[in-house]
Amino acid sequence: MPKILTVDLGTREYPIYIGSGLLTKSEFYRDHIAGSQVMIVTNDTVGPLYLDAVKAALAGYQVREVVLPDGEVYKTLEVWSRIFDALLTERFARDATIIALGGGVVGDMAGFAAACYQRGIAFIQVPTTLLAQVDSSVGGKTGVNHPAGKNMIGAFHQPRAVIADTQTLETLPQRELSAGLAEVLKYGFIRDVAFLDWLESHMAELLGRDAAALAHAIGRSCEIKAQIVAEDEFESGQRALLNLGHTFGHAIETGAGYGNWLHGEAVGAGICLAADLSRRIGWLPEADVERTRHLIACAGIPTERPADLNADQLLEFMAVDKKVIGGQLRLVLMRRLGEALVTNEFDHNLLRETLS
Amino acid sequence: MPKILTVDLGTREYPIYIGSGLLTKSEFYRDHIAGSQVMIVTNDTVGPLYLDAVKAALAGYQVREVVLPDGEVYKTLEVWSRIFDALLTERFARDATIIALGGGVVGDMAGFAAACYQRGIAFIQVPTTLLAQVDSSVGGKTGVNHPAGKNMIGAFHQPRAVIADTQTLETLPQRELSAGLAEVLKYGFIRDVAFLDWLESHMAELLGRDAAALAHAIGRSCEIKAQIVAEDEFESGQRALLNLGHTFGHAIETGAGYGNWLHGEAVGAGICLAADLSRRIGWLPEADVERTRHLIACAGIPTERPADLNADQLLEFMAVDKKVIGGQLRLVLMRRLGEALVTNEFDHNLLRETLS
Repeated sequence: MPKILTVDLGTREYPIYIGSGLLTKSEFYRDHIAGSQVMIVTNDTVGPLYLDAVKAALAGYQVREVVLPDGEVYKTLEVWSRIFDALLTERFARDATIIALGGGVVGDMAGFAAACYQRGIAFIQVPTTLLAQVDSSVGGKTGVNHPAGKNMIGAFHQPRAVIADTQTLETLPQRELSAGLAEVLKYGFIRDVAFLDWLESHMAELLGRDAAALAHAIGRSCEIKAQIVAEDEFESGQRALLNLGHTFGHAIETGAGYGNWLHGEAVGAGICLAADLSRRIGWLPEADVERTRHLIACAGIPTERPADLNADQLLEFMAVDKKVIGGQLRLVLMRRLGEALVTNEFDHNLLRETLS
Repeated sequence: MPKILTVDLGTREYPIYIGSGLLTKSEFYRDHIAGSQVMIVTNDTVGPLYLDAVKAALAGYQVREVVLPDGEVYKTLEVWSRIFDALLTERFARDATIIALGGGVVGDMAGFAAACYQRGIAFIQVPTTLLAQVDSSVGGKTGVNHPAGKNMIGAFHQPRAVIADTQTLETLPQRELSAGLAEVLKYGFIRDVAFLDWLESHMAELLGRDAAALAHAIGRSCEIKAQIVAEDEFESGQRALLNLGHTFGHAIETGAGYGNWLHGEAVGAGICLAADLSRRIGWLPEADVERTRHLIACAGIPTERPADLNADQLLEFMAVDKKVIGGQLRLVLMRRLGEALVTNEFDHNLLRETLS
């Protein structure tokens, strides 16, 4: 039996199913498909692995697929528009359902297409990477990148269900597993120091893809995210905590060129930068910054920004961050391990020192 | 003093200001601008006429503009993306405000950009055509066209305010004035036969741009639309009535090539087709079909579909209509003049006869 979590969003409430072998089981899809037409959006890495199995589970529906090129560099308006070409070629109606089969990029693009096709249709997330299972498939943030900034064009659009099949992690490259662990660690850093302790003591099992350890890590991550999203669906407040490491991380990703750093890698390095700035402000003791770096490093993630990006370049990319309000950059920092906060009250000289 | 209508949408409630000379007055903007940054989206026809006046009214804000090419043929994802280029070049933040200054195409594209920039920012509609003042600026439907279908990609995103300056109609080409009157007549056909009578007896004043007659027609049209939208914001039911003539009209627009028929012209011809089908079903007497054609013709709008599109071609374009549910085409037809209904219960042979 899968673990079932509920994201409590009133009329937009939906379940997250977590377990092994779920994506081949029709019962996890059927209740959440709106009409009879299903468009599976996937990429050319994940499609060959799982597309046939998902289609077999959807016997009886009019199922079509659109296979996008794999990679963050393709998360553009132009590639996104191919989903509409496919939907319209197939004459798909407003009661059609989109299934996102893949990692965060596929989920973000498919979800954003579902948000905009005929002004909004149903969609289901079937995340196949650790990062997507713990982060990008939950919470309804969808979108594409602009050359000047990551996720700058998008929408809030909640899925009807998330089907997180932990068996898909068996085929995940090690580098992507590590990148996903950065987001898992993030949940500990922002809200649950006990989970951080657990992760510290189970890092070897996680890296070794122990099924039980992964299932626990995914479940707890989704629980924390679901709770925060339920409190603040449209990010007018607390939800911004989920962006720990992300303002730094997005600047790294944009500056390094999309796809050169994986999102999770950039977030991991970003968490280390956030910890460093939190220390300079006087909140985190040096030992906790060291522990942060150690945890990130043990997960196999870089702890430093790219050497070829200087502080000025990073500050420039950070200036277009979505958390900027009234011209003021706001950052998610750590008051202590397990307690993050959003603030614009920091000395910009300290920020520059952190980036230098 | 302007006439002020309220679109009653709970937390998304907003005012429509209708009057002469409003767009030069800062007081109609100030309460509805979110932060300090304002991006005016306009086109190369309307911009030269009104951009300076609007900018003068916005003294004190950081105002920038993006000028799009004029015409339905440019209502594409590609042209739409230029709005994001401008927003990001100027480092506009999530508390920026977009002002749409122009007709329906500008309003639809600017509103859709506001819906998606950083997952949603504020926007204000300043419609400068009759069609935009009575229809496209009210109700929160935004979007762009796809080669295979009109308005197929978009979002529901309500403006913070609509500023309908009737003085802008003085510079409107006669053809566009007529096209706008098609949408004005539509409100009479769907819900208010007394308004239809009034329009019939004031058509000469309206075509002669009598300010008082236009203000009354705009006010009553917005009232009816605001009422229907308030009852059904996301078009799960009654709101579809506003699409009288639109399923036929969109097929004509798409089939004729975007921009060759004005939207209002296609809707006018579409209303005549809807009346004809309503007669064939046995709802409208022949005399009312004649009256419908007469009203549309008097407003200066075509009453027939384009001669070079046959029934099969039109049916093909109608098959992707957003009102298709479960593979069934639904149409807005007339039970009687002043009472429209949405139905899939019509004999497709009768529809074919109407189109032939």
